[in-house]
Amino acid sequence: MNKKQTCTFEWLPDRSSRIPIYRQIILFISAQIQSGAWEVGSQLPSQRDLAAKMGVNRSTITTVMDELTADGIIESNFKGGTRIISNTWALLLSENSIWNRYVNLGSFKSNHAMIQAINRLEFTPGILRLGTGELDPALFPGELWKKAVKSLENIQSLNYLEASGLYQLRCAIVQHVKKFGILATPDQVLITSGSLQALQLISVCILSAASVVYTEAPTYLKSLQIFQSAGISLESIPMDEEGILHHRIPGKDSRTRILYTIPTNHNPTGITMSQRRRQALFEYCAGNRIPIIEDGAYEELYFDNQSPRPIKQMDQNGNVIYLGTVSKTLSPGLRIGWVIASEPIINRLGDVKMQMDYGASSASQWIMTEFLNTGMYEQHLEQIRAAMKNRCDHAVRVLRQYLGDQVSFRTPTGGFYIWLRFNRKIPMQKLFEEAVKVGVLLNPGDIYDYAPTNALRISYSYLSCEEFEEAVERLAGIIKR
Amino acid sequence: MNKKQTCTFEWLPDRSSRIPIYRQIILFISAQIQSGAWEVGSQLPSQRDLAAKMGVNRSTITTVMDELTADGIIESNFKGGTRIISNTWALLLSENSIWNRYVNLGSFKSNHAMIQAINRLEFTPGILRLGTGELDPALFPGELWKKAVKSLENIQSLNYLEASGLYQLRCAIVQHVKKFGILATPDQVLITSGSLQALQLISVCILSAASVVYTEAPTYLKSLQIFQSAGISLESIPMDEEGILHHRIPGKDSRTRILYTIPTNHNPTGITMSQRRRQALFEYCAGNRIPIIEDGAYEELYFDNQSPRPIKQMDQNGNVIYLGTVSKTLSPGLRIGWVIASEPIINRLGDVKMQMDYGASSASQWIMTEFLNTGMYEQHLEQIRAAMKNRCDHAVRVLRQYLGDQVSFRTPTGGFYIWLRFNRKIPMQKLFEEAVKVGVLLNPGDIYDYAPTNALRISYSYLSCEEFEEAVERLAGIIKR
Ligand SMILES: Cc1ncc(COP(=O)(O)O)c(C=O)c1O
Ligand SMILES: Cc1ncc(COP(=O)(O)O)c(C=O)c1O
Repeated sequence: MNKKQTCTFEWLPDRSSRIPIYRQIILFISAQIQSGAWEVGSQLPSQRDLAAKMGVNRSTITTVMDELTADGIIESNFKGGTRIISNTWALLLSENSIWNRYVNLGSFKSNHAMIQAINRLEFTPGILRLGTGELDPALFPGELWKKAVKSLENIQSLNYLEASGLYQLRCAIVQHVKKFGILATPDQVLITSGSLQALQLISVCILSAASVVYTEAPTYLKSLQIFQSAGISLESIPMDEEGILHHRIPGKDSRTRILYTIPTNHNPTGITMSQRRRQALFEYCAGNRIPIIEDGAYEELYFDNQSPRPIKQMDQNGNVIYLGTVSKTLSPGLRIGWVIASEPIINRLGDVKMQMDYGASSASQWIMTEFLNTGMYEQHLEQIRAAMKNRCDHAVRVLRQYLGDQVSFRTPTGGFYIWLRFNRKIPMQKLFEEAVKVGVLLNPGDIYDYAPTNALRISYSYLSCEEFEEAVERLAGIIKR
Repeated sequence: MNKKQTCTFEWLPDRSSRIPIYRQIILFISAQIQSGAWEVGSQLPSQRDLAAKMGVNRSTITTVMDELTADGIIESNFKGGTRIISNTWALLLSENSIWNRYVNLGSFKSNHAMIQAINRLEFTPGILRLGTGELDPALFPGELWKKAVKSLENIQSLNYLEASGLYQLRCAIVQHVKKFGILATPDQVLITSGSLQALQLISVCILSAASVVYTEAPTYLKSLQIFQSAGISLESIPMDEEGILHHRIPGKDSRTRILYTIPTNHNPTGITMSQRRRQALFEYCAGNRIPIIEDGAYEELYFDNQSPRPIKQMDQNGNVIYLGTVSKTLSPGLRIGWVIASEPIINRLGDVKMQMDYGASSASQWIMTEFLNTGMYEQHLEQIRAAMKNRCDHAVRVLRQYLGDQVSFRTPTGGFYIWLRFNRKIPMQKLFEEAVKVGVLLNPGDIYDYAPTNALRISYSYLSCEEFEEAVERLAGIIKR
């Protein structure tokens, strides 16, 4: 194979983006290299050709080349050609750098290589993100946001807050969660920088390296290294249509253990646990003295019928730690989540939060308080539920049309995800790479499971219906090959 | 002593506060108990007397009593009296709670008891915070803030950001730090939720339980459990007028080690390291292959003469990790800090940040970008510098006047702090408690040092000149007794 021919592409910078053009080009080229689409050793097109093909000035390309050269990613030869020499982001440290004993020393593990790649590739302009668990930016409530932001103008100061977060926001959350049956006082609420920080706090506050966390298989938690980095074991419990199979959780174990579950609109399978199963699970755990972390990230994103009440609602003795977030309903960039638990737990988590980062931005906390207290949040939720239902219906049709004979999946009743299982064995790494080459970013199921899955997590939340169809068409094209 | 007489007070709720009255009362009573001013076992005044003395409705007091009773802090007897029965915040878990094996299990240590008490007491309405390392809310730039917040209105969406943070903010920071001699590219910048998160990331990414961190004695770091919780040892290095005594750092050691220093307007001593010492320290560390964390939290808060250039400025090989924050100049509530380091370090920290909480609020990041790009931040900094100089001059006069013969201290040239050493031995815990009784909150030096210090960290940043004088007068009163 002639290396010179590998660096072909069909891509233009996005002139409406806030990201400067030269930067978009760097991201694009880096992503091509990172994904393997452009191989190390291959030759880049000439600067003139790049400029012409991308419709940009020569000087822009010169800037790009200088930066990529400085980063050690490309190298020019004296004949004026440019060659890819490295595909690593974390540029290798020079042999005698003062840091070379350090960078991999810490207890915190690196992200899964594929997740690192996904995190990077998400910022490739124009890529179709078929697995991204975020709302389409087009669904951002610009007008409500403007109103909410106005309330910030009257703020008199933004000093450090109480450990548990803004009192007004905690009160607003107490009112909000009452709607789906959770009764709490403001002192039982802790504001965090998203649910992820809540999980991080739990991992260092109330569990130890000798603890075990039971999770659904597959589960979102598997894609995180939080617990693993703290030395905590994860153990998988299988699910059926009604949710986790509680009786498969070991009844006795000498270790401290906890159950992590996403009962409503589960990530990544989309399953909502039945009321009956919730009851059985709650009783089983209480009987076996297994505390529960209930992750309600998708609690309110049902389509037609309200979801069953949270497990936390049955909890009279503080056995359940409930996690909420606005990342899936409004904005992950706000970094607002909350923990609802008994006061000793809240106090312990709050104390450590004060030592780790003092908690969430007050600006975000005030904005969110305004969203809740004015009813704007509720109003927005209704729009999101309607939009998700539409997109889901469309997604199901499109998947049936293009891949109907190749895959099997359940029709979701809420949330963001379809767990798409291939009927025949598909080499996932290869599929991922090929998809990137045609501008589609996938979330392979392996990130979420304990064993290889032969599945994809498809999300209908991020792409518009047109983009979704385009992405699935390209995906189907690869699979047929 | 008649217990009935211990629960006296001179305090009124603050009607201009955003905190509801009943909550202020709970905080006040709790603080009295927590500080020991009101002892466990003692009798509270009757509800009628409390209402009358605080100028509030009986019904407000009833709400307060109900909440304190539910929390197990007070207990009514059948004669209608009310007794204090517990002084612990983290209410003890009931004997057979599901959590009792858990709450103290995690690797993360609890905050120092005195720091926990300070964190709580800071929210007592009306208390004079003589040691708080924050700007007076009155110095918050309300008008500039309004302008900066306006820029948020046009935001189109707030999704998850790149691991290293908002690109536009990183560019703005690159421009900003150039002003004091630090040259960096946007890829060498990581946005964090304040410097504290940067320290947290360092503790789990590039150090291990077998590492050692050298610090000045005393140091801000001592007041945090971040490194200690990760099992990392802290070792103290003495200082003189010019800063840390570099030659006291062990030349050889088989452990991985790093130096943490606050060269400019040091917390808590106020010392700024001389140019000569910076050079010597940098060379000593490079020679002994000891990387440096340079904490620049107070970098720009000089009074008359610009501070010496940061150590980072001498650094050609990426040996120095530089930390910045806007917490001491603009607002801690924004939770915006930054790390400047070589790319492999930034990538490693960014990868773990993505697993811990996805980083700082985008709302905060956009606000800060606007502050920097419009020049508003620079303009505000000048005001803060002038205000701090005034307050410092005043503080020095007041301390000389009221305590001149009892203490010794250095006159600061920037920053927030005066390290006040008592000439004769003072029982610090007792002083702290007595001060709380007269409405003054102190930061005893012991929190910051490796050995008992007989010193206080006085801060002139938080109180107005009048309040400062009032607080020092009360303090002097106690000391004379
Ligand atoms: C189940 C679940 N929990 C928590 C999160 C993290 O959300 P946050 O942005 O609040 O940290 C996600 C996001 O993907 C999720 O799917
Ligand atoms: C030296 C020093 N570094 C860092 C911080 C923490 O600041 P941030 O609010 O940015 O986490 C402080 C605050 O007291 C400080 O004094």
